[in-house]
Amino acid sequence: LKKLKGNWIIEPYKWTMLGYRMKHKLYEKKSKFQKIEVYETLKNGNIMLLDGCFMLTEKEEFVYHEMIAHVPLFSHPKPERVLVIGGGDGGTVREVLKHKVVKQVDFVEIDEEVIKASKKYFRGLTSWMRDKNEKRVNVISTDGCKFIKKKKNYYDVVLIDSTDPVDIGMVLFTKEFYENVRRALRKNGIVVAQTEEPFFSGHMIKFIQKRIRHAFGRKNTHLYLAAIPTYPSGTWSFTFASRGITPLTIRNMNS
Amino acid sequence: LKKLKGNWIIEPYKWTMLGYRMKHKLYEKKSKFQKIEVYETLKNGNIMLLDGCFMLTEKEEFVYHEMIAHVPLFSHPKPERVLVIGGGDGGTVREVLKHKVVKQVDFVEIDEEVIKASKKYFRGLTSWMRDKNEKRVNVISTDGCKFIKKKKNYYDVVLIDSTDPVDIGMVLFTKEFYENVRRALRKNGIVVAQTEEPFFSGHMIKFIQKRIRHAFGRKNTHLYLAAIPTYPSGTWSFTFASRGITPLTIRNMNS
Repeated sequence: LKKLKGNWIIEPYKWTMLGYRMKHKLYEKKSKFQKIEVYETLKNGNIMLLDGCFMLTEKEEFVYHEMIAHVPLFSHPKPERVLVIGGGDGGTVREVLKHKVVKQVDFVEIDEEVIKASKKYFRGLTSWMRDKNEKRVNVISTDGCKFIKKKKNYYDVVLIDSTDPVDIGMVLFTKEFYENVRRALRKNGIVVAQTEEPFFSGHMIKFIQKRIRHAFGRKNTHLYLAAIPTYPSGTWSFTFASRGITPLTIRNMNS
Repeated sequence: LKKLKGNWIIEPYKWTMLGYRMKHKLYEKKSKFQKIEVYETLKNGNIMLLDGCFMLTEKEEFVYHEMIAHVPLFSHPKPERVLVIGGGDGGTVREVLKHKVVKQVDFVEIDEEVIKASKKYFRGLTSWMRDKNEKRVNVISTDGCKFIKKKKNYYDVVLIDSTDPVDIGMVLFTKEFYENVRRALRKNGIVVAQTEEPFFSGHMIKFIQKRIRHAFGRKNTHLYLAAIPTYPSGTWSFTFASRGITPLTIRNMNS
């Protein structure tokens, strides 16, 4: 390593590494589930880490949150009931709420401490929590994997804004879970999950796709990518699966 | 910085950083123009640095080289004469040569030492230099900026595979240079230049675009992106400018 000016926060990822210049640590807590850290970076706003992995920076988070939410919500003809699993930072729910057609959002995050930290340090992502006129969201602090088992034929869109498929995140990548997601969707239902990056973890994408295809069928399962500088390789993948609707047919935003 | 296992080669870029695990240094030389370094990485093959900036890894270089070469070459109806400025690693010329319609490639690299190092440490990029049946390329070791001034109405495609717009790379980003490129192109001529990344250097893209538009006109200037994990932010931009042809009209590969 060269000598570097200033302080840096880095994420080693396999045989690669990403880093940001930082000003100082704002927060650190070991919750029941994971280690939560927040730093102020020099130019990218605050950054959150869970178990040492970069989750989001204030400057760049819009790409991930817009891409996980709007692709399925604009693909569905009438997305009224939405379930968000994970995404305790609040950004995915913020994007979902931009769709006026949405009547109910169940926001299931296992770790309340992530929500608390986000309320304080990521105010742009959690502004909807402070909006007294926003009554569409139920914040539910429980295990999304157990929660979804009880729901049948209920949601129009399910968004799986999980951490990586290790430790607590792993249950959100099992065959059983995807089967339960499919059962929780009603007619025309769509699920989108974050599914890792293609350059260093292509095998993971294949592995996850295989499981999702098993539940939804090959012709109902699609992959799409987004450019996200916060994550390893700078390219991230999402898997779109549905009970029949394809994202390749675009609905007019004004319809 | 956390304690990291193993050795790393890193590139600090503004307030961000990229890194690869490395095995060892293979080569270092201060040429007349720049510092050239080659390392063997743990999983991405060899990596070349010029003045401390990552230029390419063997595993990932295909994206950059395919994207700089094939977009203009497939957009042009009959690209017979091609000029490559920079790109001493040989990768851009390798891709150009895949087009059988190409009759002549002038490969103008100011720094012979980069070509020498590439011949030794990046054999996949320089294989065409060892191919005795490949007689289409003229390797010319001179200043591309001066070279192009003498050419009028000659090339079908010009590829500007430059380093960043600092130090020796800067002359390849001036108004005068772009004017000279335009004059060097014949009817239907196309130029593509690498033009930095959009997340942390958006202002640079605007600045460069403005200059290229000045020479080619707004409606003849287009921007396109590619996902390249080797470079800051993981997303890189290319500018396509032409004497009338647009990349939005795709030519059939078999035509």
